[in-house]
Amino acid sequence: MKPVRKSVVGLTLLAPVAAFAKSDKPNIVFFLVDDMGWVDSSVAYGEEVYPNNLRFNTPNMARLAEAGVMLTNAYACPVSTPTRTSLMTGMNAAHTHITNWTARERDTPSDASGGDIEPGSVPEKETDILRRPDWNINGMSPVPDVEHTQYAKPFPQLLKDAGYFTIHVGKAHWAAAGTPGASPYNMGFVVNVAGNVAGKPRSYLSEDNYGNTKELWDMVAVQNMTEYYGTGVHLTEALTREALKTLEYPVQHDEPFFLYMAHHAVHTPIQPDKRFIQKYLDAGMDEGQARYASMIEGVDKSLGDLLDFLEKRDLVDNTIVIFMTDNGGNSENKQKGGILHTQNKPLREGKASVYEGGIRVPLIFRWPGHVAPGTRVNTPVIAEDLYPTILEMAGVRNAEIPQTLDGQSLVKLVTKGSQLAAKAAKKGEIASQAEATRLVTPVEVSGIDPERMLVFHYPHQWKPYSLIDIDYMTAVRKGEWKLVYRMLTGELELYNLSEDIGEQNNLAAKYPEKVKELATALSDQLRSWKASMPTVRRTETPVPMPDEMLN
Amino acid sequence: MKPVRKSVVGLTLLAPVAAFAKSDKPNIVFFLVDDMGWVDSSVAYGEEVYPNNLRFNTPNMARLAEAGVMLTNAYACPVSTPTRTSLMTGMNAAHTHITNWTARERDTPSDASGGDIEPGSVPEKETDILRRPDWNINGMSPVPDVEHTQYAKPFPQLLKDAGYFTIHVGKAHWAAAGTPGASPYNMGFVVNVAGNVAGKPRSYLSEDNYGNTKELWDMVAVQNMTEYYGTGVHLTEALTREALKTLEYPVQHDEPFFLYMAHHAVHTPIQPDKRFIQKYLDAGMDEGQARYASMIEGVDKSLGDLLDFLEKRDLVDNTIVIFMTDNGGNSENKQKGGILHTQNKPLREGKASVYEGGIRVPLIFRWPGHVAPGTRVNTPVIAEDLYPTILEMAGVRNAEIPQTLDGQSLVKLVTKGSQLAAKAAKKGEIASQAEATRLVTPVEVSGIDPERMLVFHYPHQWKPYSLIDIDYMTAVRKGEWKLVYRMLTGELELYNLSEDIGEQNNLAAKYPEKVKELATALSDQLRSWKASMPTVRRTETPVPMPDEMLN
Repeated sequence: MKPVRKSVVGLTLLAPVAAFAKSDKPNIVFFLVDDMGWVDSSVAYGEEVYPNNLRFNTPNMARLAEAGVMLTNAYACPVSTPTRTSLMTGMNAAHTHITNWTARERDTPSDASGGDIEPGSVPEKETDILRRPDWNINGMSPVPDVEHTQYAKPFPQLLKDAGYFTIHVGKAHWAAAGTPGASPYNMGFVVNVAGNVAGKPRSYLSEDNYGNTKELWDMVAVQNMTEYYGTGVHLTEALTREALKTLEYPVQHDEPFFLYMAHHAVHTPIQPDKRFIQKYLDAGMDEGQARYASMIEGVDKSLGDLLDFLEKRDLVDNTIVIFMTDNGGNSENKQKGGILHTQNKPLREGKASVYEGGIRVPLIFRWPGHVAPGTRVNTPVIAEDLYPTILEMAGVRNAEIPQTLDGQSLVKLVTKGSQLAAKAAKKGEIASQAEATRLVTPVEVSGIDPERMLVFHYPHQWKPYSLIDIDYMTAVRKGEWKLVYRMLTGELELYNLSEDIGEQNNLAAKYPEKVKELATALSDQLRSWKASMPTVRRTETPVPMPDEMLN
Repeated sequence: MKPVRKSVVGLTLLAPVAAFAKSDKPNIVFFLVDDMGWVDSSVAYGEEVYPNNLRFNTPNMARLAEAGVMLTNAYACPVSTPTRTSLMTGMNAAHTHITNWTARERDTPSDASGGDIEPGSVPEKETDILRRPDWNINGMSPVPDVEHTQYAKPFPQLLKDAGYFTIHVGKAHWAAAGTPGASPYNMGFVVNVAGNVAGKPRSYLSEDNYGNTKELWDMVAVQNMTEYYGTGVHLTEALTREALKTLEYPVQHDEPFFLYMAHHAVHTPIQPDKRFIQKYLDAGMDEGQARYASMIEGVDKSLGDLLDFLEKRDLVDNTIVIFMTDNGGNSENKQKGGILHTQNKPLREGKASVYEGGIRVPLIFRWPGHVAPGTRVNTPVIAEDLYPTILEMAGVRNAEIPQTLDGQSLVKLVTKGSQLAAKAAKKGEIASQAEATRLVTPVEVSGIDPERMLVFHYPHQWKPYSLIDIDYMTAVRKGEWKLVYRMLTGELELYNLSEDIGEQNNLAAKYPEKVKELATALSDQLRSWKASMPTVRRTETPVPMPDEMLN
């Protein structure tokens, strides 16, 4: 395939670093989409346009990308809560021991397989081979000594302490009901709209009161939306309107704000955004695909509305906008239409998998005067990096926190790194998909070692049935190499992502030394974090670490 | 009965008016209790201690009263929404045409009797004699042109525009779902916790997730409380903790705040506050009475916690605290224990009635340096007065609003009036219950004419069964006189409240000229407001105005 030259979109000359007009603290908008895959956009989040990109229409994501820097090797966790708690703690999910989504009710593991059958009893089903690990099933907590939680100071609290007007809109999903982490008001947010323990809405439709009807209701029905019931407004639009309202106070008072705009979309249920669906049906998509595409465009419209607001209020120059999604696209849900396990192509698998389809996410920073617009940087980065990044952007230094950070600030990467990328692109030094992991930004410039180890740990069974490329897996990326470990079988797989982004060619047999290097490093890291591991039911011993499989 | 000298509690010398230390804008805490009757407290809200007062323990209400001025003739509407929308509009309920509580769903009258039976058909039941009036069944709206709403600019919006950090915690209940008034975020509040269309909770108990269980849920389940589910925290305490959290930002930023602390308690369901119930049981109360008293004490504790917060943060001197309830105590609910229709004695009837038991409410202002502490003022005042009062206190002048105010500012009454009351009490000029309506504060001093007309309009049937002293009534108070009009029978009753606070002696036959005066004035006022009136089904004509019954 001929390399498509897409690595630099709408490159313009780097604007000089501007002095902030009103305040030395920039406003920050963190725009987080749920379950939106890496190729679920008309703008390519990597180096290349894939067929899947053609199914979507996201002009505002493109608008943001053209004005900012895109991190083409950005990662999250395989599922929602771990990513969200990594964002809020600055810690890797294997370190927080929040490796799966939190159930609504306290003390309730969300693992699909049990853990409650008699120890030592013979497993009857394949899904009974392993017993779920002991993990922080209640999520994170901003106060200590809450059972089965990771105690940490969330960065919004530090922003608030530093004078920021912090706003939460949409999905929180950091913790179970009955624990402090359930409420954004405990996590450092001044204002909350809708955030609680819900991991998804029961309905996006105002006709269903967003799940607040006798028939639909359960604890994840969306709260704070009463005014829209029956009005025909899709949840994505309703949350956007609420977000715009909450910005009035800090803007009026010239106070720096942090907006955490966390859409429920495009998580299931896949329900149409009526404003946009017709063109996708007309284009010949099946109903599910069209619904999904309309939800994506709804999110894009939301992003556009926020960008418009910043322009109208003359806030663009002093507002950092960060766009991200919480994990890969769901490839295991028929509501989305199309063929299961293919929707994230060229990436392998989807949500809940440690293959690229489950963990690779869009990540864009717009920061006028600091970031070279229209650039791409391909150093691998991960969700927990956002914690120190956002704090550094906000000028919060030396904060006292109880947790040990794993993430590293990306500020130099997105500023100096983007400037370097802009120069490199001008000189034609980045020219192909194959160079996506060539890592143009050295650690001396960016502060981020392109060869650092990124860990993805999912010691769980996701669904009540076995999913071979999803359940009980852990992985590590280091530079262009990725090692995948299957806990159920003990297999180790090795991929070279710069040549094989789809993880189709297992090179383990070809490069045993690389396997050994990565398995050792990954195991050491997991051991140092005391990472949760499942138990083998037959032997009542923990699943072996990857390096135990080397001989 | 020997008059009990209770009109001045803990009187101290009037403190000099202090200059504000931090800001020229005082903070304002408006503490609103639901369905708490005038005698449901150990502190007497009138001039006398009644037997009912002995059933309660409310040290913090007493603490507030000792530091502030109590308005011993304060009124609200017979039911919740009309009071709350009168507060938010500054208009009388007969003028907003929001005379009953708003149902959850849009376009749904809450009237107990129909309105949907065939026009002209013969009524079969007593409750079918009248057809419900055309009223603003969707409540109030902060934006124009919403069907069946009163459009008005809520005073919190004006406070916010003036720089206040405005906080809503608890029960809103201004409007139906699907309309803008359903959300505090549209009513000028910067922060909202729990406020929506709910008029009552499904449960106060965390064990029930405050109504958020599959069995209990309906649209009035309390939102934003997920963190407390199953923790044993009573809703009253949970809302208080949330309120204290929301105050952190404005206090930290030294910004003036307005806290609208609107408890769901002590509305039904009557569920015990475990922290306090035992002593009431030990005192020999029945279970219902003890539960109710424990809920009252829970609210009192909440008030105390807020007062403590103000003290700890050195905010007392610059914070106005206003305490009020939204209507009289419910006298028609067996959950409260005791004997129905007697719980508000000496007042006649209770919630939903225009007799004193339904409309007379506690009202206390604490305003250090402005209000003479421990004083009582007996000029009659009414809910809609709070709108201009609070705006004047906040220094908001000449605001452009779409509605025509009926309320009058009470600022001079509570400042100069309380000072006059302090002097009068010192001289022994107020000495008895009989003087409750003697109106020691003349209009020249207080700006409030003690003889102005206060209207209470309830053209509805409350329950699915007939309640003779509640349904379809309207009333007016003018000075010491009160006229009650029964729409179902056309009867006019006259009471002298200074001699007969219990409204037991109908003086209509004795003072026909007074009846005529009040009936005429009331009718003129209702006509000028185009007040909603029921229709007589048999004739399909509106119920006659009170003055049409004079001959």
